[in-house]
Amino acid sequence: MSEKLEQLKERLGEVSDLQHAASVLGWDQQVNMPPMGNEARGQQLATLSKIAQEKFTSDEVGRLIEDLKQELAGADPNSDEAALIHVTARDYDKAKRVPPEFIEEQAIVSSKAFEAWLEARSKSDFSIFQPHLEKVVELVQRYVSFFPPADHPYDTLLDDYEPGMKTADVKAIFDGLRPKQVKLIKSIAKSKQVRDDFLYKKYNEKKLVEFGEKVISQFGYDWNRGRQDKAAHPFETTFSVNDVRITTRYEEDAPLATLFSTMHESGHAMYEQGINPAYERTPLSGGTSLAVHESQSRMWENLVGRSLPFWEHFYPELKKLFPAQLDGVSLKTFYKAINKVEPSLIRVNADEATYNLHIMLRLELEIGMVDGTVAVRDLPEIWNAKMDDYLGIVPPDDARGVLQDIHWSGGSIGYFSTYALGNLISAQVWEKVRKDIKDLDDQIRKGDFSALLGWLRTNIHQHGHKYEPQVLVEKVTGSRIKPEPYLRYLTNKYNEIYGL
Amino acid sequence: MSEKLEQLKERLGEVSDLQHAASVLGWDQQVNMPPMGNEARGQQLATLSKIAQEKFTSDEVGRLIEDLKQELAGADPNSDEAALIHVTARDYDKAKRVPPEFIEEQAIVSSKAFEAWLEARSKSDFSIFQPHLEKVVELVQRYVSFFPPADHPYDTLLDDYEPGMKTADVKAIFDGLRPKQVKLIKSIAKSKQVRDDFLYKKYNEKKLVEFGEKVISQFGYDWNRGRQDKAAHPFETTFSVNDVRITTRYEEDAPLATLFSTMHESGHAMYEQGINPAYERTPLSGGTSLAVHESQSRMWENLVGRSLPFWEHFYPELKKLFPAQLDGVSLKTFYKAINKVEPSLIRVNADEATYNLHIMLRLELEIGMVDGTVAVRDLPEIWNAKMDDYLGIVPPDDARGVLQDIHWSGGSIGYFSTYALGNLISAQVWEKVRKDIKDLDDQIRKGDFSALLGWLRTNIHQHGHKYEPQVLVEKVTGSRIKPEPYLRYLTNKYNEIYGL
Repeated sequence: MSEKLEQLKERLGEVSDLQHAASVLGWDQQVNMPPMGNEARGQQLATLSKIAQEKFTSDEVGRLIEDLKQELAGADPNSDEAALIHVTARDYDKAKRVPPEFIEEQAIVSSKAFEAWLEARSKSDFSIFQPHLEKVVELVQRYVSFFPPADHPYDTLLDDYEPGMKTADVKAIFDGLRPKQVKLIKSIAKSKQVRDDFLYKKYNEKKLVEFGEKVISQFGYDWNRGRQDKAAHPFETTFSVNDVRITTRYEEDAPLATLFSTMHESGHAMYEQGINPAYERTPLSGGTSLAVHESQSRMWENLVGRSLPFWEHFYPELKKLFPAQLDGVSLKTFYKAINKVEPSLIRVNADEATYNLHIMLRLELEIGMVDGTVAVRDLPEIWNAKMDDYLGIVPPDDARGVLQDIHWSGGSIGYFSTYALGNLISAQVWEKVRKDIKDLDDQIRKGDFSALLGWLRTNIHQHGHKYEPQVLVEKVTGSRIKPEPYLRYLTNKYNEIYGL
Repeated sequence: MSEKLEQLKERLGEVSDLQHAASVLGWDQQVNMPPMGNEARGQQLATLSKIAQEKFTSDEVGRLIEDLKQELAGADPNSDEAALIHVTARDYDKAKRVPPEFIEEQAIVSSKAFEAWLEARSKSDFSIFQPHLEKVVELVQRYVSFFPPADHPYDTLLDDYEPGMKTADVKAIFDGLRPKQVKLIKSIAKSKQVRDDFLYKKYNEKKLVEFGEKVISQFGYDWNRGRQDKAAHPFETTFSVNDVRITTRYEEDAPLATLFSTMHESGHAMYEQGINPAYERTPLSGGTSLAVHESQSRMWENLVGRSLPFWEHFYPELKKLFPAQLDGVSLKTFYKAINKVEPSLIRVNADEATYNLHIMLRLELEIGMVDGTVAVRDLPEIWNAKMDDYLGIVPPDDARGVLQDIHWSGGSIGYFSTYALGNLISAQVWEKVRKDIKDLDDQIRKGDFSALLGWLRTNIHQHGHKYEPQVLVEKVTGSRIKPEPYLRYLTNKYNEIYGL
């Protein structure tokens, strides 16, 4: 390794250490922190993030990147070293464009917007949130202005989550999907409905959590390099490739959601546990993009965890644990229940068939806010009209409508589409997995996930943040992200369940 | 506040945030971290400590200190502002004297010495540790050489833990104590022994831990600003005045030790919870010194927690929780058992009467190592001879002798005396408390600790790190640290228990 590369890696290592330290503090805040600890913790996190930013955007890092670009000019662009310089240069350029004062201003505006959002949601009064969201949008537009003009201003935002991806690509994908997904939901609505009352009985929390832990152990989540704790919101967080943690919560109203949430987070975590250890403490660690990350969590949650072969293996055990709750419920009935389709108001509770429509609605509004064609004050009205169009239901109040998500209050505009793209990628990759592992269903039926996890490790996980998402997806599946596999998956599944 | 003071506080605040972040990472390492997480965590901690050190010793901090010294030249030296500059200047001067390369070398030597110590202890073979300890001592001597010559080279080390304290002071205090404490132990040994078999029965861990938590809640430990977890070693750690945590362990061989350990750690924690919040994020936060800190933990553990009035209140409840274990054990018998004196080999298991002798032995060896009058290779022999002199027992092997403590392997020389000084201060402060709160015993008998905690808050806790330990002790008790109150306390207590 050249001396300059070593110097750069040392500096990047420090930045990574600071970011991971912040992740530990953030995890502790969600999992352990006593109520009064919040103020000091906020200050500590702000300091860590400020120093990490200062260290990363130092002139020395800039010089090293420039020198190494020249040094590696003739190298294979797919080599780890060339990729490291490419990715680091891209992140550096972005970071340098945003003035520190802007970041501070954004932190203050977001913090106030978050408070206002909490109040607005609890009172179901959009007017409380509106002026704050207007400021958030203004800041987002200012953020975009720091970058060279793109085809669409939303491109700049999207690029932060999905490097290389364009608004036009996402629109094209979703335009191909939306009418067919709406049609599918309508024909399901006309079919005979499935029974799922037994999912909403009381289930013992401890037993359910232990069952979930057994399942993800069998998936291949490595407890020597992770742990699960309780938190108000389920999430995955990474402190190093050897310390990847998840959280769960017990949902009183829908106890089995706990189980699917654990599978979901384990998908994120197994991804992180599978990244090439040589990328540690560099910008090549972490997943490819949010969408690719979500493809892994969704795959384990849905394509595996809501499949019939999976439950052929695990249902007898679940039934033994909860004989009263599942008395007289056959495997088929259970399987149909956990795949029930029902248009609903709240995104996070949506089923597989309707979920993407919640996302498309948000994406359209975001694009409009950013390019100025949608005014913040009109959001509630447009929201409700689109809900009616896509899902055939209208929120009775804004708390269950435009005010339901936290994202905008924190300035996260550009994030939502990654959820839907993750669903698409999961199905697209799944078709390839099934080609490569012919007896996958049989293996799952035996509770054996080793070939599947091995395949994902080799084809996706190990590459970390090295490739852009479209490049990786094309490398793995032979084509860029497209809606057809997901649509095929949904259609096949629901044809069978609903006898369409 | 002057502009420069504001600037200095901002910089000190960043350093404090980094140190507290490191404390969170350290706590997590002991309490939660999965086994494989260690290597990355070590790197993260090293980065945080390096950056904190760099930020603290920056030229800008030096300039601000100098300017503020002049600005505050005429100010009351007991004002918080003057104290802040004084303490910061002292710490800055110390930090600047130690080259960063030395700190790195010390980290490497300690890390190897720690591994060697683990092996040496498990094989009870001092020769494995000896060459490493020789290097540790050499580094400690080099460390001393960075500072201006003192009356004794050990002064420099002691000053890091007990600012302003001299080796001669500590020696004088201990010389006044040792012969009398040895005599006391000998006369106890000749008396009728007390019964304590029931302390070593099986006690349910959960019930015991909950009882401990109830006790410290009653003391005044604030759970809104803290929590207790299980760890391999009990400790207290501070992330802010509003987040002060403790850990405990269940000791299979001596279950009730769990309880006394919880009281001990709560003493440290209540100290930290009681420091003036205005000192947050400055070098005035944290306790006065290790010895004053230990005086608080020892006070709650021993002067409160092993007193008869305390158990008059709590024994009925303990007996209700453990009726089988304590069947036929009267309050008096229980009280005597938890105060049993028995010379033993291991410091951490020593009772109140013998504990200080373990410390004095170590202090004498440390002073000898530092000034060159004791060779590392001779340690085992001298250790055993002194054990025989002071306690009348000789370790059968070095694992239970010179190899029992972790401290020297980490380069912590100068630390041990703070334990014994803490005991002395606790008794000296206690005499003053009893003068000020006439009916203290009655209050304790009722389980009411509010006046006691209030007194400690006002007289000790709130001052944080503002004063030197001798200054604080004199301010509180009217005289500097002295051995008589502790000796009076021991003599009274054991006269009664052993009928001397």
